[in-house]
Amino acid sequence: MIKIAVCQIKTTTDWEETMFRAETMVRDAAANGADFAVFPEMFNCPYSRKYFHMYAEMGHERSLARLSAWAKELGIYIVGGSIPETGDGKIYNSCFIFDREGRQIARHRKVHLFDSQLPGLNICESATFTAGSEITVFDTEFGPMGCAICYDIRFAELFRPMAMRGAKIIFIPSQFNTVSGPGNWEMLVRCRASDQQVFTVGAEAAYSEDVRYRCWGHSVVCGPLGNVIASCDETEQVMYADIDLDEIDRARKSLPIYQSLRRDVYPVAE
Amino acid sequence: MIKIAVCQIKTTTDWEETMFRAETMVRDAAANGADFAVFPEMFNCPYSRKYFHMYAEMGHERSLARLSAWAKELGIYIVGGSIPETGDGKIYNSCFIFDREGRQIARHRKVHLFDSQLPGLNICESATFTAGSEITVFDTEFGPMGCAICYDIRFAELFRPMAMRGAKIIFIPSQFNTVSGPGNWEMLVRCRASDQQVFTVGAEAAYSEDVRYRCWGHSVVCGPLGNVIASCDETEQVMYADIDLDEIDRARKSLPIYQSLRRDVYPVAE
Repeated sequence: MIKIAVCQIKTTTDWEETMFRAETMVRDAAANGADFAVFPEMFNCPYSRKYFHMYAEMGHERSLARLSAWAKELGIYIVGGSIPETGDGKIYNSCFIFDREGRQIARHRKVHLFDSQLPGLNICESATFTAGSEITVFDTEFGPMGCAICYDIRFAELFRPMAMRGAKIIFIPSQFNTVSGPGNWEMLVRCRASDQQVFTVGAEAAYSEDVRYRCWGHSVVCGPLGNVIASCDETEQVMYADIDLDEIDRARKSLPIYQSLRRDVYPVAE
Repeated sequence: MIKIAVCQIKTTTDWEETMFRAETMVRDAAANGADFAVFPEMFNCPYSRKYFHMYAEMGHERSLARLSAWAKELGIYIVGGSIPETGDGKIYNSCFIFDREGRQIARHRKVHLFDSQLPGLNICESATFTAGSEITVFDTEFGPMGCAICYDIRFAELFRPMAMRGAKIIFIPSQFNTVSGPGNWEMLVRCRASDQQVFTVGAEAAYSEDVRYRCWGHSVVCGPLGNVIASCDETEQVMYADIDLDEIDRARKSLPIYQSLRRDVYPVAE
């Protein structure tokens, strides 16, 4: 069994305060025997253009140093949600992942930037960020895992190649909001698990009245039949889920989707 | 507005009896002003290998003649769920679609055959059927529409090209069962609508204790935000849904998924 701790953090406008909350959550996760501590998208930076730029200017290294140190001290994998990453004069929405030794083993740069005109919610990530162009699969002691960030979840084509490359759990740090969250968030996390017959970890930030962007919360971990293993409300908390990877083989034996793909009818990303 | 009538029929082992029920439902649909009457997968043939072969031997023409005559007399589009189609010494699981003049305007042969080993439910469609190899999009007075049958819904790659070719409503005649239906059926119909920002019509057969295969029922019509427009229980009934195609443009403006596809990262079926 693999124990997942989803750290549904309430991000504040103060970086040190937020990192203190994050550290407390990782220590809680480790004390409870979690193998992975998973943070949401922009877990340490308020979700707004002003802060994206401000945090990007301050650099991402200080956040990575903390994550790495916690991972090494506590011997726990950390999926570092996402943070503004600076590089080549550009800013990326990036998730950095660390192993139990504190080594960075993966980086996913959000591939699909969120440019929306939802009612009361005009967001234009592409005004700040540069999109990544890589499908992210990384090795762990439990096998390969994948990563996608928030809006990436709406693109089924990004998930097939992760599963084709062996990903057993796909981590999806996110900040779905109170507009589209109620109708779409859990449905999407469940359906991507069901589509690929893998586990999905949908890690949301907590709802907060202190910041303008209203995150939906409701982190959810799903199994390869699209089943919900663990879910929670919108409040700040560490949510735990136990994952039995053998369920993947059982699901794929009962519904052999991968044997029925029709490469002669449509392209399948490998 | 387009009015959809989902004919959630209770299929019997007697063909004339079932067709009588079907006719009653189509007349009900027409009387209520429906533009489309939609039947489920194998709507006039009990879902079992014995009957698939028996009905295939009797030929599909007699069923098509009835559907065509009803469509013409009542001036209604009919999406003929599916029936065993015989041709070239093979049997297909095929949906025939008729316009208001009774002309056959499309045929979808199920692309992904259902070979499952779900608990208590060993099904091997490929022992009877030959799989189709075509993506089905057809023209109507309301614009292009698409069609997929049951297990096809598990393959996101089949839905992208339908939407890329302009399909605004995707009809999905099905017979999800009481094993995977409760957890997966509505989720999948909703998510395929949300993925492609189109309408989906999930047409199920009614639950029946008179046949061995226990259909889940719960037909559902979904909008381009993954929202449920109409749903019902497992009993035999005609379920109505009103569709406003303008919702597609609104959804695609609020979340411009189609502008964010990354053909440089993964293949996209056109």
